[in-house]
Amino acid sequence: MHLGVCYYPEHWPETQWADDARRMRAIGLTRVRIGEFAWSRIEPEPGRLDWAWLDRAIATLHAAGLGIILCTPTATPPKWLVDAMPDMIAIDREGRPRRFGSRRHYCFSHAGYRREAARITRAMAERYGHHPAVVAWQTDNEYGCHDTVQSFSAAAATAFRVWLAERYGSIAALNQAWGTIFWSQTYRSFDAIDLPNLTVTEANPAHWLAFRRFASDEVVRFNQIQVDIIRALSPGRDITHNFMGFFTEFDHHAVAQSLDAVGWDSYPLGFLDSFRFSEADKLRYARQGHPDIAAFHHDLYRGCARGGRWWVLEQQPGPVNWAGHNPAPLDGMVRLWTLEALAHGAELVSYFRWRQAPFGQEQLHAGLLRPDDVPAPAYAEAARTAREIEALGPMPAAEKCVALVFAYEADWMTTIQPQGAGLSALWAAFAAYSALRQMGLNIDIVPPDAALDGYALCILPCLPVVPNQLLQQLADFDGPIVIGPRSGSRTADFAIQDGLPPGPIFPAKVTRVESLRPGLEHVGEGWCVRHWVEHLETEATAELVADDGTVACWRSGNRRYLAAWPEPELLAVVLDKAAREAGLERLDLPDGLRVRRTGSLIFAFNHANRMLVLPEEVGGRVVLGQRELAPAEVTVLAL
Amino acid sequence: MHLGVCYYPEHWPETQWADDARRMRAIGLTRVRIGEFAWSRIEPEPGRLDWAWLDRAIATLHAAGLGIILCTPTATPPKWLVDAMPDMIAIDREGRPRRFGSRRHYCFSHAGYRREAARITRAMAERYGHHPAVVAWQTDNEYGCHDTVQSFSAAAATAFRVWLAERYGSIAALNQAWGTIFWSQTYRSFDAIDLPNLTVTEANPAHWLAFRRFASDEVVRFNQIQVDIIRALSPGRDITHNFMGFFTEFDHHAVAQSLDAVGWDSYPLGFLDSFRFSEADKLRYARQGHPDIAAFHHDLYRGCARGGRWWVLEQQPGPVNWAGHNPAPLDGMVRLWTLEALAHGAELVSYFRWRQAPFGQEQLHAGLLRPDDVPAPAYAEAARTAREIEALGPMPAAEKCVALVFAYEADWMTTIQPQGAGLSALWAAFAAYSALRQMGLNIDIVPPDAALDGYALCILPCLPVVPNQLLQQLADFDGPIVIGPRSGSRTADFAIQDGLPPGPIFPAKVTRVESLRPGLEHVGEGWCVRHWVEHLETEATAELVADDGTVACWRSGNRRYLAAWPEPELLAVVLDKAAREAGLERLDLPDGLRVRRTGSLIFAFNHANRMLVLPEEVGGRVVLGQRELAPAEVTVLAL
Amino acid sequence: MHLGVCYYPEHWPETQWADDARRMRAIGLTRVRIGEFAWSRIEPEPGRLDWAWLDRAIATLHAAGLGIILCTPTATPPKWLVDAMPDMIAIDREGRPRRFGSRRHYCFSHAGYRREAARITRAMAERYGHHPAVVAWQTDNEYGCHDTVQSFSAAAATAFRVWLAERYGSIAALNQAWGTIFWSQTYRSFDAIDLPNLTVTEANPAHWLAFRRFASDEVVRFNQIQVDIIRALSPGRDITHNFMGFFTEFDHHAVAQSLDAVGWDSYPLGFLDSFRFSEADKLRYARQGHPDIAAFHHDLYRGCARGGRWWVLEQQPGPVNWAGHNPAPLDGMVRLWTLEALAHGAELVSYFRWRQAPFGQEQLHAGLLRPDDVPAPAYAEAARTAREIEALGPMPAAEKCVALVFAYEADWMTTIQPQGAGLSALWAAFAAYSALRQMGLNIDIVPPDAALDGYALCILPCLPVVPNQLLQQLADFDGPIVIGPRSGSRTADFAIQDGLPPGPIFPAKVTRVESLRPGLEHVGEGWCVRHWVEHLETEATAELVADDGTVACWRSGNRRYLAAWPEPELLAVVLDKAAREAGLERLDLPDGLRVRRTGSLIFAFNHANRMLVLPEEVGGRVVLGQRELAPAEVTVLAL
Repeated sequence: MHLGVCYYPEHWPETQWADDARRMRAIGLTRVRIGEFAWSRIEPEPGRLDWAWLDRAIATLHAAGLGIILCTPTATPPKWLVDAMPDMIAIDREGRPRRFGSRRHYCFSHAGYRREAARITRAMAERYGHHPAVVAWQTDNEYGCHDTVQSFSAAAATAFRVWLAERYGSIAALNQAWGTIFWSQTYRSFDAIDLPNLTVTEANPAHWLAFRRFASDEVVRFNQIQVDIIRALSPGRDITHNFMGFFTEFDHHAVAQSLDAVGWDSYPLGFLDSFRFSEADKLRYARQGHPDIAAFHHDLYRGCARGGRWWVLEQQPGPVNWAGHNPAPLDGMVRLWTLEALAHGAELVSYFRWRQAPFGQEQLHAGLLRPDDVPAPAYAEAARTAREIEALGPMPAAEKCVALVFAYEADWMTTIQPQGAGLSALWAAFAAYSALRQMGLNIDIVPPDAALDGYALCILPCLPVVPNQLLQQLADFDGPIVIGPRSGSRTADFAIQDGLPPGPIFPAKVTRVESLRPGLEHVGEGWCVRHWVEHLETEATAELVADDGTVACWRSGNRRYLAAWPEPELLAVVLDKAAREAGLERLDLPDGLRVRRTGSLIFAFNHANRMLVLPEEVGGRVVLGQRELAPAEVTVLAL
Repeated sequence: MHLGVCYYPEHWPETQWADDARRMRAIGLTRVRIGEFAWSRIEPEPGRLDWAWLDRAIATLHAAGLGIILCTPTATPPKWLVDAMPDMIAIDREGRPRRFGSRRHYCFSHAGYRREAARITRAMAERYGHHPAVVAWQTDNEYGCHDTVQSFSAAAATAFRVWLAERYGSIAALNQAWGTIFWSQTYRSFDAIDLPNLTVTEANPAHWLAFRRFASDEVVRFNQIQVDIIRALSPGRDITHNFMGFFTEFDHHAVAQSLDAVGWDSYPLGFLDSFRFSEADKLRYARQGHPDIAAFHHDLYRGCARGGRWWVLEQQPGPVNWAGHNPAPLDGMVRLWTLEALAHGAELVSYFRWRQAPFGQEQLHAGLLRPDDVPAPAYAEAARTAREIEALGPMPAAEKCVALVFAYEADWMTTIQPQGAGLSALWAAFAAYSALRQMGLNIDIVPPDAALDGYALCILPCLPVVPNQLLQQLADFDGPIVIGPRSGSRTADFAIQDGLPPGPIFPAKVTRVESLRPGLEHVGEGWCVRHWVEHLETEATAELVADDGTVACWRSGNRRYLAAWPEPELLAVVLDKAAREAGLERLDLPDGLRVRRTGSLIFAFNHANRMLVLPEEVGGRVVLGQRELAPAEVTVLAL
Repeated sequence: MHLGVCYYPEHWPETQWADDARRMRAIGLTRVRIGEFAWSRIEPEPGRLDWAWLDRAIATLHAAGLGIILCTPTATPPKWLVDAMPDMIAIDREGRPRRFGSRRHYCFSHAGYRREAARITRAMAERYGHHPAVVAWQTDNEYGCHDTVQSFSAAAATAFRVWLAERYGSIAALNQAWGTIFWSQTYRSFDAIDLPNLTVTEANPAHWLAFRRFASDEVVRFNQIQVDIIRALSPGRDITHNFMGFFTEFDHHAVAQSLDAVGWDSYPLGFLDSFRFSEADKLRYARQGHPDIAAFHHDLYRGCARGGRWWVLEQQPGPVNWAGHNPAPLDGMVRLWTLEALAHGAELVSYFRWRQAPFGQEQLHAGLLRPDDVPAPAYAEAARTAREIEALGPMPAAEKCVALVFAYEADWMTTIQPQGAGLSALWAAFAAYSALRQMGLNIDIVPPDAALDGYALCILPCLPVVPNQLLQQLADFDGPIVIGPRSGSRTADFAIQDGLPPGPIFPAKVTRVESLRPGLEHVGEGWCVRHWVEHLETEATAELVADDGTVACWRSGNRRYLAAWPEPELLAVVLDKAAREAGLERLDLPDGLRVRRTGSLIFAFNHANRMLVLPEEVGGRVVLGQRELAPAEVTVLAL
């Protein structure tokens, strides 16, 4: 695995570059990512391209032996461009322009901006496409960050109508598919269809779903333009993009299809603060992040890469600046996160950033170096980790174990029509992932069209639309299958399917669903139905029944259907059964301990605040660390 | 009492209509409500009216023996109409358009839309006004739903100025009435007056009150146009409208004056979620709704009908889709709600809806049938209830007992200037209603101009403006009168009246009012002053005095004045005294049990989660159910 | 000290004026403030000035022996003016106009409105500048109230660009200072710079800081125009402005420089409700306000006056109307607040308002008189206090004791980039003030450029930018110096300074800062690190070390550096040490008791809900009250 770092030569005096590069190499870094916010420096005025500084920066880094990941700077179009075409600005859901002054201030649907983004991409690729230092390209930066996928601009409305016409063919087909007869919404032409924001009360869910798909497709299209240019002009280089954590605004599976390596930006402490964790967990893991945040995304983005190559393009190296509270990670966590990425199969971990910037929006975001150029705590951790990675040698691949099926549009559908406040498919997926990982199992988070052969166990935590291809895969699947609530509940156009949910995926009819306010519970033995419950008409066996008769889990053959929201305790019971049936070795791990098996190695990570001991059933020879793990410690065993 | 159902023939294949109609009749339904969102189907393009399908639908329902309540479709103007006059769209308080895509996307003040609404109403009334199947008309749907009474559009501003000129005659009179000398707000002409939204800090309360009255009058006017057309073209048919629950945005008493039967839509579980109940009550009654939700509205809308005819036009039949949490009602609740409406004097209960729609915004809203056409739980409950109603025979009228005076503008005034966060006249009215009903008393919720003769007890929970007519009525009233805080505190133009509140309604001067943060309490014996306290200068007797000397209730002759917010415990003490003095038999009902007397019958309803036993003092011969009531059970006794 | 009252002759019949004036004098009032919202009465239509009524009002008040504080009416421009130039309206951060209908509906940057404000000011000053009754002028009213300092209008954008050009000279200098290279924000000209609102995510903090400074300067400029006119036309009269509580939107030190007496409006109960106090404190002090609210502002505004003359222009006399909850103060609090102002050196306390208005927005705001012209509770308290003040005689000045350095822009910087939710320099300053006052110490809250000689102790609770002048002052300061977190952390343009914080103010480098979620704590002995912690590289002595090794306080020579958020318990420990070293006599006061020494007198104030006894170490002869203080009681001792 390569270690790298994100670097902004334009932020620092040129005199510092060579020493920076030298020190990067000295601590074992081999990759450096540059350029992503440099447009105003590359093209300080319209049409005048200033390559000289970048030529020198690249040369300097190259001379030190670093491989460069060069980024297109399209996430931050310069002010002169915005002034030249003010309507390239996105419009928010409330109808307000999202103005220049930070980043991502563009509408994906604006043709003029797409041309400009292509122009600057082409210019960069022409100049550096064959440069020996350039090993990879990153397109743009964090698509969707700051809620920037959906734009409610005139450009988006126009493009949406075209998209609809292509998808539905005729307005009659759209009216039929969306059920516009409901509330007198029948359209006479595609031109009559507006964006679904600012309606009096909720818009038609099919309307929203179409808009979400359209908006996602616009990201795919925007990215593809850059990919096509770079492929043509920079042969042999990898193309990547840095996705974010807990982002579902667009279909990452779709964008990933054109990438050579799928990247993501790992900020466990920031994500802890912003995702739906309990206050208790937020406090307990304040300096570590919830133990499954990073791993969940590793396994999700490996799935986006279809099991292939994936990178951590930004790794949190200390406190960040952007969460509600920004504590420092425990000493050792940067190393732990790095080794965890290694264990999950990353090809690269790149720290963000080399040196803390003393100016701008992120001046309280840590780097490997302090603003005064002295090493910050992560500097030594990175150096140590580089040596350890070297010593461990090439990583063996992990064997297939559990397949967790996740679709981005599942999350769109559950958030468009949650029925119970705050429920979402992403939350369900994370809960299922965490429950499985607490059993010490390896998980692959895969798209609905992934092949399932080779897996011992399959879970669909919440998948409203089940494609035919997946139905077929499941029919061929021998191991236990766990199907979460709402799965198979909707057609592709957000209608309840004929014959009632969950359709062919499970032999039952969901005759009624209920969402439950907090405190309204059906108590079982060691588990509880909360938030959501479904009533089934079925010949299947009621496997878990609450004291009041509410059935939480039904079973038919190798399939289980969860008729309740996948809460941790319920998942623990159900997945324990399924794992045993699958013949999987289930570990009884203490709170905060996590393991990952990679063929011949077992990695163990202590995310807890206290000393933990590896359970005896985790065997093997210690090749790194020890069987007693201090907080933030990592142990590696060889079998 | 008739049972009916809301039906959307346009949602279903025509081949299904006859069987639907047959089954409606088979379970005892005699009424069917149709047409309310069908504009785009009736007039698919401007001026082309397609009656054929509706002719056939009506014929089919008629043939089955159903009486039809035909609705004007004006709550959902079609897209082509909005495109033809985009400024018919309402503008929200923040200045944003409330766009097409759901429903109620019109501004009541838009002259063009009023013409269009009249046109489609006339067209329907001309075609079906004399149709033998049509027994009644419903105007529009749920005026005010989704906060649609107030529009801050240019059309509204213009109409508001005309309204002001008519009300005040001269700008000098308005300046005087509003006290515009305060903060230099004097106007030189009616044209200078804007709508009161988007002011830097709160606008003049008299300005807001005038706008609220104007906005309410616009609803009255809008409705009147349809009523006038239908009366002329469809003689002998009832005209109704379906009001909603806990809605106070317009004066329902005023709209009701032109109706033959006052309708409302009863969704106890949805209303539980959205109204100001404690979290404990929301949990306790999660599957029943607070026991007084439905009854409060029955008695309120019977008051809107001046004691006359009233209907439940939509009855919740299972889980709904629109609340924060949407659990299923307990088995039996649909029957309980239906019989409760019967006991309170309803002429009709119409379930919403016949069959759950598999598409559109409400696809998770239950019906009598599931989307797959199989009976949902409410189907059998409806059928059983129909038989029971038949068996019970015609309902005797209830005798007058307690009059609770409520005015919509009281709620406007308390929310315009709450003085203490969250306090409102509606909340006070509900608390008083609930306290009285827990004593087993029958209550009529009446407007301030209702006659009070025949009542044993009268309560005004919170009535800032006390009209002279009411003062006279109270002077003639012999029974105990309970006057809540803020009553008599303001002139009709929202000024403190001369000589201080409460004016002639009670011999006292309120010299100071305080609102109290939660936790700031004055403790009495079994009650507590919370939220609000008033200091009185009076010769009246201090009847309830807290430990620290704070007086919660004053008495003078047959009148009591509550100098504190009407909290449940305080109300229980005060109303117990008043009821005894009134000679009313006060029952000691267990939590969750409610009764209603209708001349010779006593109905008892168990809203609790546990088995309850009727108290011994509730005598009579059991004609339905038994004296031990399971949850959701109903017992009827004959005297 | 003078007592006065705010009076609105335009609200009352002219026949009442003389008696009002007589009664004011009868209870000992000698000042009356008028005119501040009277523009529409003074100039009922454009250009027609109606002085007659005001002439008579002034004559009447004068005849009674009252000195008049005459206000310019510019906080409430009349509707005809807004209609004549609609773009004078401010624009809020969301881009919405802040319309006419309440007050402060103007944009400080609008040249047309500035001209109009100058015109009406000149007209008033020409007419009354030499009037013998006029003793002082108040400019406008409560600058900044209702969040009105920042306007995002076109006028503001234009003026901001001019301001930037003046400050930075060249766009290159601005780019350098702001670090616009970050996120590609480089500007090519000042014209390209927008206001920092509505950006996709946070704008550059230097951009925000510049805008905040600009917006503050616009207030200074607006006020200066009026001051210049009045000085020229009304020689010998004091000019004042009434600042508000817990307002930091503009630099009060800067506005105050042109005033003769600095005024503020004291509403302890309202401020309790709206500032960041714990719920427990809000409940405990619900009827008193937190004990330090009024005193903090007295000492802050005395600092704005550079130790000179300051007034309380509005004093809460009972319940107000504008907070979330509006209880009445305890009996005696109005007197306590008045005597507290006296003890802190006020020259004037003016009650707001004479008579409660029965109309308009503030009809539930108490006055000295009730709306029915009968004395409200505060009337007698004011009269009694007037006699007591008379008896106490002239106040001796307080000696210098503790200097607490506060800068308004410190609060801007901490709120622009809080790093931890809710942290602000104002909160830190209040906490430090409260801790010192609980020790019985006198405090002066001074600007960073104030002279520090004569003080025994100096504290900078949170001062991101430390000016050189202050560094020099501190170098010359012999007593203990306590430096709070974030002090010295930023350059004047919001960058981390070279060589890391805190720079020359303390011999250390802050290598890392962390913000901590509630519950994440480092526990020391009787104190706790919460919210914020800094890691220092230093040769200084670790004075307070938590159980886990976290250092909360470092010491080097006479300086201490708090590496943690200034929480009450931590402050108590640190300031106790510092006070002892400074040789200050530290009192052990019971909760809720506060004292103030003024040369030969000691005032004691009981803010608690229970009887308190003065500690023995508080010596002297009782000249008012007694050593046992009932709630809201005041005791004065002479040494």
